[in-house]
Amino acid sequence: MNVLITGGGGFIGSRLARALLARGTLGGEPLDRLTLLDGAFPYELKDPRLQIVKGDIAERATIERVATLDTQAVFHLAAVVSGGAEADFDLGMRVNLDGTRLLLERLRQCARPPRLVFASSVAAFGGELPAVLDDSTTPLPQTSYGTQKVVAEYLVADYSRKGFLDGRALRLPTIVVRAGKPNAAASSFASSVIREPLNGEVCDCPVAPDTGVWLLSPRRVVEAFIHALELPSPAWGVNRVVNLPGITATLEEMLGALSKVAGAKVAQRVAWKPDARIQAIVKTWPVSFRTPRALQMGFHADADVETIIRNYIADENVRVR
Amino acid sequence: MNVLITGGGGFIGSRLARALLARGTLGGEPLDRLTLLDGAFPYELKDPRLQIVKGDIAERATIERVATLDTQAVFHLAAVVSGGAEADFDLGMRVNLDGTRLLLERLRQCARPPRLVFASSVAAFGGELPAVLDDSTTPLPQTSYGTQKVVAEYLVADYSRKGFLDGRALRLPTIVVRAGKPNAAASSFASSVIREPLNGEVCDCPVAPDTGVWLLSPRRVVEAFIHALELPSPAWGVNRVVNLPGITATLEEMLGALSKVAGAKVAQRVAWKPDARIQAIVKTWPVSFRTPRALQMGFHADADVETIIRNYIADENVRVR
Repeated sequence: MNVLITGGGGFIGSRLARALLARGTLGGEPLDRLTLLDGAFPYELKDPRLQIVKGDIAERATIERVATLDTQAVFHLAAVVSGGAEADFDLGMRVNLDGTRLLLERLRQCARPPRLVFASSVAAFGGELPAVLDDSTTPLPQTSYGTQKVVAEYLVADYSRKGFLDGRALRLPTIVVRAGKPNAAASSFASSVIREPLNGEVCDCPVAPDTGVWLLSPRRVVEAFIHALELPSPAWGVNRVVNLPGITATLEEMLGALSKVAGAKVAQRVAWKPDARIQAIVKTWPVSFRTPRALQMGFHADADVETIIRNYIADENVRVR
Repeated sequence: MNVLITGGGGFIGSRLARALLARGTLGGEPLDRLTLLDGAFPYELKDPRLQIVKGDIAERATIERVATLDTQAVFHLAAVVSGGAEADFDLGMRVNLDGTRLLLERLRQCARPPRLVFASSVAAFGGELPAVLDDSTTPLPQTSYGTQKVVAEYLVADYSRKGFLDGRALRLPTIVVRAGKPNAAASSFASSVIREPLNGEVCDCPVAPDTGVWLLSPRRVVEAFIHALELPSPAWGVNRVVNLPGITATLEEMLGALSKVAGAKVAQRVAWKPDARIQAIVKTWPVSFRTPRALQMGFHADADVETIIRNYIADENVRVR
């Protein structure tokens, strides 16, 4: 089986790549080739089945190179993140919308319609929201990133309906804890407030302590991508989008969990420094969901924030300072 | 005031143009120039304020010509219709999506952000629908036309949120009675079953007598376009889309009304000839709505089908045979 991950150099993409290589199969077939496309590859990955391509998803020649006509499975994660797409509208449209369209058009040419899992986001939601969202809540994004994600969801659904490919879209909660450095995502702080204190560093939290966040761990999201791809087409039906399960925690609760796992001294390294730009974006995001459809389809949330932090320490070999 | 109508040669576009010229003002300002863009102009219109441009909305040079940088109001009606976009996917994407994007990008360059009214459609809805839809129903289009309309709605909303323009989108019911010839819209029959019998011609109805249709008259939709443009921006808020009010009628009820207005002999000119392709599209469309938001914003439905037919006869100078 010939598999492509766009955004394969990113935090989730590289962990998904590792998981696929470790498994050795996808959808019951052996993994023959795994191509990763990204603009940069900060995580080291080596495997004879691996093809690493540094390039721009919004360039047709790049897409034609990485998505060969025998491609059977695609995980489409490449994106300009929320803060980046809000700061540079044209760049967001080019990568998140035009890049996705180039990919869909290329996959349409494949010998057999490939399966595609698209990484969408709860940034799809915004405006006046109910306290708890559910599978019937209509997306009303209040960022360009969220708009581009919703537009891509609709295109993936229509390409699937036409039989050009077999697409599935996952609306991802905020992924916590991300390893590495902060990025331009407006949600970057949600990982920083755990990661930096564990590394012995101080960290400014740009939102208020009672700000709620809808969370999923890297472990669970990698499982969700693989599960979404392996589900048979009828399990999706005409609705090709699902809100992934998650857990709700306030920043205060997250630091409480950090204190339990690593001690009060670690948690006290976080300082409250409200940032109006970040708060304006984050306050438009949903905090809590009922996700019966995803649960029925076999997707899972994490147990609690303490478990998320313990798994992060284990998975990333963190030496707590 | 400098005004543009894309699709200005079409049935609704040309009637909107006539209404604007007759009014002489828009948003309290005198109408100085009215530009109509379309691929063909079958309806005759003459006025010193009128500029008629035959061209392709998916060509940048055409858009730059018709949308000058002092444009203050745009009615964006140009589209490949439902049956056409389903038969030719690439053409639908090019005109309905790429053409809309070219227009939005051009308007973004205007000296002052212009107002834009976008003609969307109840074809936005599909899949498993409630018996009565409302303002909270999530679009799940089951045609490429519907997908392209929803995608354009989201882009109009984001361009508005960013302050690039001041957009508003109307989800149009099926417009009945259209004058002229049948077109490639899957809904074309809903006008044909009234229009052709009144002209003394026989007509095949491609859907069953108990098929329900959500209807609005040409008079009311022209009023709705002008009202949508004249509403102040805060009346729309962050939600830039509204389901227009309409009335529900089955084909049987429509022919009953025709019989009352023009006699049983006229209504009997319709023959039931089911067409699987048309039925497959029409059965995905919604039949009944609650539209509190639109009513509160000052949009209106027609009284009943008889009134729609009588107004058609009056407005189009039909001599009933």
